[in-house]
Amino acid sequence: MERLASYVSGAWVHGSGKAAVLVNPTTEQPIAEASTEGIDFSRTLAHARDVGGPALRALSFAQRGELLLALSRAIHANRDALIEVAIQNGGNTRSDAKFDIDGASGTLAYYAELGKQLGDARFLVDGEGEKLGRSPRFFGYHVLVPRAGVAVHINAFNFPAWGLAEKAACALLAGMPVVSKPATSTALLAYRIARLFIEANILPAGAFSFIAGAPGDMLDHLGGQDVLAFTGSADTGARLRVTPAVVHGSVRLNIEADSLNTAVLGPDVASGSDTYRMFLREVSRDITQKAGQKCTAIRRILVPSAIEGEIKDELVSLLRDIKVGDPALEGVTVGPLATAAQLRDIRAGIQKLSAEASIVLGDGAFERVGAQDGKGYFVPPTLLHCKDPDAARDVHQHEVFGPCATIVPYDGSSARATDLVRRGGGMLVGSVYSDDRAFVTDMIFGLSPYHGRLYFGSEKIADQTPGPGTVLPQSVHGGPGRAGGGEELGGRRGLAFYSHRAAIQGARPILEAALDLKS
Amino acid sequence: MERLASYVSGAWVHGSGKAAVLVNPTTEQPIAEASTEGIDFSRTLAHARDVGGPALRALSFAQRGELLLALSRAIHANRDALIEVAIQNGGNTRSDAKFDIDGASGTLAYYAELGKQLGDARFLVDGEGEKLGRSPRFFGYHVLVPRAGVAVHINAFNFPAWGLAEKAACALLAGMPVVSKPATSTALLAYRIARLFIEANILPAGAFSFIAGAPGDMLDHLGGQDVLAFTGSADTGARLRVTPAVVHGSVRLNIEADSLNTAVLGPDVASGSDTYRMFLREVSRDITQKAGQKCTAIRRILVPSAIEGEIKDELVSLLRDIKVGDPALEGVTVGPLATAAQLRDIRAGIQKLSAEASIVLGDGAFERVGAQDGKGYFVPPTLLHCKDPDAARDVHQHEVFGPCATIVPYDGSSARATDLVRRGGGMLVGSVYSDDRAFVTDMIFGLSPYHGRLYFGSEKIADQTPGPGTVLPQSVHGGPGRAGGGEELGGRRGLAFYSHRAAIQGARPILEAALDLKS
Repeated sequence: MERLASYVSGAWVHGSGKAAVLVNPTTEQPIAEASTEGIDFSRTLAHARDVGGPALRALSFAQRGELLLALSRAIHANRDALIEVAIQNGGNTRSDAKFDIDGASGTLAYYAELGKQLGDARFLVDGEGEKLGRSPRFFGYHVLVPRAGVAVHINAFNFPAWGLAEKAACALLAGMPVVSKPATSTALLAYRIARLFIEANILPAGAFSFIAGAPGDMLDHLGGQDVLAFTGSADTGARLRVTPAVVHGSVRLNIEADSLNTAVLGPDVASGSDTYRMFLREVSRDITQKAGQKCTAIRRILVPSAIEGEIKDELVSLLRDIKVGDPALEGVTVGPLATAAQLRDIRAGIQKLSAEASIVLGDGAFERVGAQDGKGYFVPPTLLHCKDPDAARDVHQHEVFGPCATIVPYDGSSARATDLVRRGGGMLVGSVYSDDRAFVTDMIFGLSPYHGRLYFGSEKIADQTPGPGTVLPQSVHGGPGRAGGGEELGGRRGLAFYSHRAAIQGARPILEAALDLKS
Repeated sequence: MERLASYVSGAWVHGSGKAAVLVNPTTEQPIAEASTEGIDFSRTLAHARDVGGPALRALSFAQRGELLLALSRAIHANRDALIEVAIQNGGNTRSDAKFDIDGASGTLAYYAELGKQLGDARFLVDGEGEKLGRSPRFFGYHVLVPRAGVAVHINAFNFPAWGLAEKAACALLAGMPVVSKPATSTALLAYRIARLFIEANILPAGAFSFIAGAPGDMLDHLGGQDVLAFTGSADTGARLRVTPAVVHGSVRLNIEADSLNTAVLGPDVASGSDTYRMFLREVSRDITQKAGQKCTAIRRILVPSAIEGEIKDELVSLLRDIKVGDPALEGVTVGPLATAAQLRDIRAGIQKLSAEASIVLGDGAFERVGAQDGKGYFVPPTLLHCKDPDAARDVHQHEVFGPCATIVPYDGSSARATDLVRRGGGMLVGSVYSDDRAFVTDMIFGLSPYHGRLYFGSEKIADQTPGPGTVLPQSVHGGPGRAGGGEELGGRRGLAFYSHRAAIQGARPILEAALDLKS
């Protein structure tokens, strides 16, 4: 069985001892194993900081952008092979795999282009200079400089390619070296990508390290110039927050966690209209794509009570014939969940929700196309209907990370919709489908404090968007409260986490010379 | 004895039970007491969120700015009375008191002016809009909206006026209601200001609450829309980080903590030059002002070895005749420390440093002008000299929060200076005195990741700045690592902590109408 290596301190190393086993979630067959036992994480981080950091900081944004472009191309050139890995270890359909892998190369290419735009500078001047005293001579600037530490990335199991790439793109462009750790269960795809990166010899020494397996004591070695970006469950996020180095060392932390994303159908949307069709299409896609294992997937479907029966029937008819099974087979839309643990969690979660909502679709036996001997972590598209959302709690607060969503009726007013959506306690993305400008305005102001992103579907763009579930590098990704309080991407904004802002005060001509600014 | 009240849920209330006692640190006489026993903190926060929040969010930036201007004027109109309180409860000299109180009114006035500039808007559009797809119709914006929770402010004992005002200015202008809790030991000044605010009836109901005494279980009631801003010790900051609501609820946290600020004398600065005089003047002021109880005060004085003896003599001659004693008396420059606990800590701290550095000034008996019966928490200006900074640890890492600093020699190179300064592990402010542009440039790039602010003293501005120890609202205040990793002020940047950024995606005309933007 293949044993994944970690790339640390400039070399590929195999951990010793007992290894974690990676399986094919369709067949439950082991396909690889990984261990980090024996890796010196203190040395790993020091190598990144001391070798990778200075090398990246010496480059301009344009030069860092060129590195990202080469990384993007390395992924794209190996797209077919990577898709096979995603099918095998991730349970992805071909379409799911492309979503992850093309998302990775696309995000790297986007930040490559941003680097080109930022040009020859090696740091950013933040805003305009400002007179600080009565005299015009005493003057102030702000700079954004690369933090002098290492960026540790702990990624989620559901997007091994995109998760690695979107975090690395921002860190490397900002000038920070990266230590990337995928979730072990689906690490094979990230591992292949890491090998491509290293073998193509694109990056300066120390700029990129890769951990295949458990993080060991790595986090204990973080310090005040380091950052830790995590995507995963709120429980693990809470554990990271109390890590001694984070508590005592002011390690900068970004957490992207659970999210009860909601799609709201506006009261103005007529049956059969373009906006209506858009809503149904995007809701059903979010339930099925990646078997619902997207942190941005719609979990609550708010529909005006007047048409809740109709919407229920429409969604059932869109979802009931969808094929669940071996994702390598053509015609299969929903593959297995990524792990046995996920299968247990999702089954338990649906059970939990069913105390507050009735199962409309997905209960009982279902066909598993091409699955053998009852193997595979399959869950069928599952639709619930919550008649009394005021009595419900889990419907609003418990994220079921699978092909599952709950219809929640509301009275068609923006006030009620806002109230219900907010019960999720902070979300990554909310979507609203409406062509009524007053309703849209209400929803923007009622919902924006509770969301990292709001998406408004409407007639004019009915066939021109990838839907709310797609994270675009132009827009920030993250969310307050339950969603972890983090922020990633958003164009230039994504560099801020990896940068340190400092105020610079002094005599104007001296500062302008040092910062290479023109008066 | 006066018992301080808290202003919660729209009423002044006295806590029951045993009270904490506030003393005059010059005489050690009790002057007031405070208790929060019996206060319903859950209700306090809910009142701020539910009554104060909507009222503030309904106002434009210009209107919120008008409130701040009125608060500023309320302080300024009562300046003389407030100065007396600062002398009595804070041990401030008249000059120290003005520094705090004028800092408060000045910062409020600065943010009032910013509100005026931001005008009729009630939220900010962040950056330019951007095309998100191939079609120009699918478009994205980012907005910065007020967070829908409450801003809890926990302030330090050293700046009861400024601490309250600078945090409140940013929160209120951003549109968040404030619950302000001063350090109990010096709370009398903050209490007087809070009474002025409430009696002048300036703010909408719920926009400002005030806690005189212990915070009780207040922090347990914080949630994902709330923020907690703290200024104080790194130890308390670490305790706040592990508060369950912070860990599990993604409460946004800003910490401003210990800081081993350094002043660096450049190798180019000739004895007797303007820059040389500026350096000596600002270093000695930072040792004596507020009896050294400034988070921005210089703790390490880096001087080229070639002139370390000379600088030592110059500083001794500037400091040795300074009068320590009753701060109400004219001619006294250094008042007492604020509390008995501070006196113990500072004495222990000097003891600790003296294991690594020799005491040049401040050892032994000293005159306490106007102090009675050996009372009062006095420490004289204390200068140490650390011959071997490589062998030292506490000199770089242990903040002695009193009238105390340590001379540290270096070889005059920017590399060595950078290395020594960085050993502080993250600072609020670093100051460099030099007219050599190459040295200044090296220091900017070597030191900016480790500082919230860098201040460059030079000939052209030798008599035109308030020195590095003064926090100006135009520049960010905070620092990485040991300094807590926080950021306050910095003009508009200070609003970000109290705002939530959300990406808004949709059809361009619909979004532009809702956000009131022109295409």
